[in-house]
Amino acid sequence: MSAVTPEPPARSPLTVSDVSEDDLLALIFPLLPAGADTVLGPGDDAAIVRAPDGRVVVSTDVLVEDRHFRRDWSSGEDVGWRAAVQNLADIAAMGARPTSVVVTLVAPGDLPVEWVTGFARGLAAACGPAGVGVVGGDLSGGDRVVVTVAVHGDLGGRAPVLRSGARAGDVVAHAGVRGRSAAGLALLLAGHADAAPELVRAYLRPDPPLAAGPAAALAGATAMLDVSDGLLRDAGRIARASGVVLDLDAVATALPDDLAAVGAAAALLGASAAEWVLTGGEDHGLLATFPAGADLPAPFRRIGRARTVGPDARGGVLVDGEPPAVGTTGWDHFAR
Amino acid sequence: MSAVTPEPPARSPLTVSDVSEDDLLALIFPLLPAGADTVLGPGDDAAIVRAPDGRVVVSTDVLVEDRHFRRDWSSGEDVGWRAAVQNLADIAAMGARPTSVVVTLVAPGDLPVEWVTGFARGLAAACGPAGVGVVGGDLSGGDRVVVTVAVHGDLGGRAPVLRSGARAGDVVAHAGVRGRSAAGLALLLAGHADAAPELVRAYLRPDPPLAAGPAAALAGATAMLDVSDGLLRDAGRIARASGVVLDLDAVATALPDDLAAVGAAAALLGASAAEWVLTGGEDHGLLATFPAGADLPAPFRRIGRARTVGPDARGGVLVDGEPPAVGTTGWDHFAR
Repeated sequence: MSAVTPEPPARSPLTVSDVSEDDLLALIFPLLPAGADTVLGPGDDAAIVRAPDGRVVVSTDVLVEDRHFRRDWSSGEDVGWRAAVQNLADIAAMGARPTSVVVTLVAPGDLPVEWVTGFARGLAAACGPAGVGVVGGDLSGGDRVVVTVAVHGDLGGRAPVLRSGARAGDVVAHAGVRGRSAAGLALLLAGHADAAPELVRAYLRPDPPLAAGPAAALAGATAMLDVSDGLLRDAGRIARASGVVLDLDAVATALPDDLAAVGAAAALLGASAAEWVLTGGEDHGLLATFPAGADLPAPFRRIGRARTVGPDARGGVLVDGEPPAVGTTGWDHFAR
Repeated sequence: MSAVTPEPPARSPLTVSDVSEDDLLALIFPLLPAGADTVLGPGDDAAIVRAPDGRVVVSTDVLVEDRHFRRDWSSGEDVGWRAAVQNLADIAAMGARPTSVVVTLVAPGDLPVEWVTGFARGLAAACGPAGVGVVGGDLSGGDRVVVTVAVHGDLGGRAPVLRSGARAGDVVAHAGVRGRSAAGLALLLAGHADAAPELVRAYLRPDPPLAAGPAAALAGATAMLDVSDGLLRDAGRIARASGVVLDLDAVATALPDDLAAVGAAAALLGASAAEWVLTGGEDHGLLATFPAGADLPAPFRRIGRARTVGPDARGGVLVDGEPPAVGTTGWDHFAR
């Protein structure tokens, strides 16, 4: 373009209220992955997905603007990615393989169309490589963005890995990262996003090790869950459901990489790196227990041991043999 | 109580912000039906539902306060019922049997807890008798009530009944009611709810003939859908998907009971009963086509015939051989 060509006048971005629902759907549909197990995709009253196991694993989550994300921090693509992966992680945590999702989006009229297509690209980025189809959905207007994903998975003939199967003597293991999402959120809140973009990204785009879920099941995992509310809190859920104590190794021993990764940010903000690692949520790692001597599938690493509950103790979590020395954030010792 | 016992002071109803999420869940869970096909219900990362067919039929819908319902008209129980049945109808419209739903609820802090437990009772009333389990969900705060349901169904080894299978010569048939929900809504809007409570109830609590979906499949239905946007508009969807014209009989012949049921309300409001029957949405009846000579399963009744598209015509809908003589409400002739 010549230097003397006048710039076109700046235009407001096209918003949802400028286009019909059909036009919006026509923009979205081509962006969505079909999925390896999809028999019938969007367009009829319902979609059809293969469930070769004869059982289907199902879960759902809702994300509400200004509760679960801020639009000035998270792009549409970030929200689509996060809504998808936190659901996919729930399927992986059962030892299953996700096959498909259905999605609803409530969109204010002033939401840019580009946000919505970005949202679709984020869903696709999370689902496509995993072979997961985005097979249906629903759109509505509303005051704020609300996103739901419902996810379906297949157990491949395996027994599900529940929260209740941990036994005294089991090894406690973790796959994925810890504390990085919490560190990224703290940086955003403090206006220091530029100090550690990789931590901010860990908050905006958590990347759970989905394939580790079925791998853990094959390796004999006795209990497993998706760590969405923090390591201590979610470990407590396995402990109580299983009637054992999970005695985690000291953080510096168990999770040295995570501790190192958030160390500088913790120093910058005057926060505790260990507390982020122990209590930070939304990393969506997998916490599992395995029989002693089991070969842990990658990327699981041992972080502790399950023990019997003492005569005066209730089910719970210890760190290095002691009650966790952390503040209350994310740590609700015996809450259900 | 003795007449002299002082009345306790009037108290505001307990609201969602007064209780913890765990307490709210503890109130809801006992109200929800387990479902005949549920292998694992709520409480772990995901639920597990039988999918004996080896395929699972999935769909989802979102309902937003002040867009899809008003809380001064619809109780929590009404909203729970409606959210469930409109999803169950989507499964029935594929010729499948619904097995389970997962549900999300966004609740403002000032929402009465009684509304939420009513919502759960409404879900249960819709799902329980059909053997459908409410197997999982998610709660969040938010400014307005937003409800999503994702539904799963089983085809029982049958081929799905799509929108695209109608053939010239097929009989067009309908099961359920028509126009009554639109009439009920019009009465509410006009402040005449007391004039016909049964029509208001048809709006608040649509009652689709779920068992007719699989029955239609067994009887050889060639196309089917859930009529959510009005008979003409949804008939147009079958017509275009199938490449035929659906020529409906005159309303007085095809749907005399519906015409009679809304007649007085139409007279009261100066509205057209026939137009309500032809264009009113949200009754969630089933519209299907069957090969000529097929025995129509109850409660389907014949309402027209599928014809070839003429040389200059596009796929569409006729009433008594002519383009429908109705206003534009709900009737978008060739919209996708």
